[in-house]
Amino acid sequence: MATLDRVQTDHYLIPLPRALEDSMHGTMTVFEVVTARVTDSDGATGVGYTFTCGVNGGAIADILAREMTPMVLGRDPAMIEAIWKDLWWAFHYGGRGGPTALALSALDMALWDLKAVKAGLPLYQLLGGYDPKVPCYAGGIDLDLTPSELVDQTHENIANGHRAIKMKVGRDLLREDVAKIVAMRDAFGPDLPLMVDANMKYTVDAAVRAARAFREFDLVWFEEPIPPEDPAGHRRILTEGGIPIASGENLRSLWEFRTAIEGGVTFPEPDVTNCGGVTPFMKIARLAEAFHLPVTSHGAHDITVHLLAACPNRSYLEAHGFGLDNYVETPLAITEGHAIARDVPGHGVAFDWDKLERVRA
Amino acid sequence: MATLDRVQTDHYLIPLPRALEDSMHGTMTVFEVVTARVTDSDGATGVGYTFTCGVNGGAIADILAREMTPMVLGRDPAMIEAIWKDLWWAFHYGGRGGPTALALSALDMALWDLKAVKAGLPLYQLLGGYDPKVPCYAGGIDLDLTPSELVDQTHENIANGHRAIKMKVGRDLLREDVAKIVAMRDAFGPDLPLMVDANMKYTVDAAVRAARAFREFDLVWFEEPIPPEDPAGHRRILTEGGIPIASGENLRSLWEFRTAIEGGVTFPEPDVTNCGGVTPFMKIARLAEAFHLPVTSHGAHDITVHLLAACPNRSYLEAHGFGLDNYVETPLAITEGHAIARDVPGHGVAFDWDKLERVRA
Repeated sequence: MATLDRVQTDHYLIPLPRALEDSMHGTMTVFEVVTARVTDSDGATGVGYTFTCGVNGGAIADILAREMTPMVLGRDPAMIEAIWKDLWWAFHYGGRGGPTALALSALDMALWDLKAVKAGLPLYQLLGGYDPKVPCYAGGIDLDLTPSELVDQTHENIANGHRAIKMKVGRDLLREDVAKIVAMRDAFGPDLPLMVDANMKYTVDAAVRAARAFREFDLVWFEEPIPPEDPAGHRRILTEGGIPIASGENLRSLWEFRTAIEGGVTFPEPDVTNCGGVTPFMKIARLAEAFHLPVTSHGAHDITVHLLAACPNRSYLEAHGFGLDNYVETPLAITEGHAIARDVPGHGVAFDWDKLERVRA
Repeated sequence: MATLDRVQTDHYLIPLPRALEDSMHGTMTVFEVVTARVTDSDGATGVGYTFTCGVNGGAIADILAREMTPMVLGRDPAMIEAIWKDLWWAFHYGGRGGPTALALSALDMALWDLKAVKAGLPLYQLLGGYDPKVPCYAGGIDLDLTPSELVDQTHENIANGHRAIKMKVGRDLLREDVAKIVAMRDAFGPDLPLMVDANMKYTVDAAVRAARAFREFDLVWFEEPIPPEDPAGHRRILTEGGIPIASGENLRSLWEFRTAIEGGVTFPEPDVTNCGGVTPFMKIARLAEAFHLPVTSHGAHDITVHLLAACPNRSYLEAHGFGLDNYVETPLAITEGHAIARDVPGHGVAFDWDKLERVRA
């Protein structure tokens, strides 16, 4: 049995190529990345990471370095479910979400990478293997763009290989959102898979109204119309608004997803960097399958492509690199609307640690 | 208008007078306390704190010192709702619970203390004022005690002024729990208000079975039979088990409480140090009132006595000092089963900062 010999935690501030804006987070200029690197007694390594929109990163790094690391050193890294359960409960009081869940996500991801590397398998095959070619979409953070700027950005995305687009909604006037959707349909026709994302901006009534206004445009989904803690509200939006609902980037456990799915979320959207890691992500994907639902994703496209490549019910992968691609040796390529899980052991994401050193927090 | 001039964050490790054990957290030897001290431009001060069972405290202190403090300096401390909402959303991504919610709780508590101090009002009067004399119970962490040890501990609690007792359940064999309840009823009669707390140990089926076994003993409530994320499970336990359900120490927002109450929690049990502070605690208490439910509490009895003293639907205050009383100038006194909110401006809890200095993390 190998044992876990070392866990290294690092905290970086990744400058965004362009300041971003959405309806609830305001303007963002930097994303945080916290990495967890594990080494076992055979000298094998695994890498995991989580990210934030600019806050909570110091807390995540503190939990990983100060508390989680001493708890896992010496353990058998092959026994991930055992480690995960022990950490969930050891950190439950004061944890059970928030930075604690993000820290656990990074560590869990590193353990799965290590396992796949040692098995000599690409992560998506270790997790079951379905299809390495995963449909994806460009997730724009573009609430501030005018209709014509949005169309220009979409031309650029299509030139970069995208064939499906998600745009932000939630401007002060609903008709401004509708005008942007109209501009997109006018420019790219009725068949472009198009999603909208409100980042929890609406009340339930306003979301029902928006869903009805959006319905004629045949959207793939309406994402985060309201905050995540309102299952009854999601149910109303789904049934009264009449378009599919995506949610999940702000849910922090398998159990929150179950309540959300029962509430009316039809596109569960876990983020492997904040739902607790690969371990719960795969359970959420399988839970969705049990409900005959697709599973989509949020964040960390380079890792998540492997997870969705192991799911027969995978829907679109969100492709959104927030500048981290500049610190990765082989960024995920998007071709004809698809990303491909790489055929290398592990998840295959190799950070440029020297370059990252320059943006240490 | 005064402005917020200073926020000081400190992180302490409070040794427990005796190691504690419950069904899910294992053995605990130290609790963490993170304090937030605010000073405004008039030189007035307020004090808030949060605590943990031994982990996540570094993260809480990091969020307060690194991130929340710069965001609130210069703001008008009278506008707590505005500050709270801004912080909730500024920290939502990666936050929305966990250490972020505990950090916010400490800061919010300090702002309410400051407000009450400046108004020259005891906190419970500032918050509405109902009755300063609040019924309370001794919350034992005593899963490892034998029936006779539990009875001995209860005699001690009664000698210390208590008239209501909560004991842990969740031993491997249900009949061991029942034997302890029988011993309590034999020793103290049928009228002693008695609660049991399983700390999320059970499955729903096991909790139903336990509730039925406990039913004949006329318990005030059955606390945290299962993890908090299962509203349908709570409903089953309530209806099939037939005894009232308390839950809330692991819920992190007003919105999680709404779902829990709708699910079947009949004794909502917020903790002012982790539900987001005084601001959401009072909303949860009023939400309970809207559902014709009592409100009980978890943790921080010295502060919480003021909050329940402002609620016509207040039930029992949990009295559980975990050793922090040794670092407070005037610990909360329990007389004839009641605690009294002190008639001094603010919450009146004065820490012995010099003594705390010796247990700095």
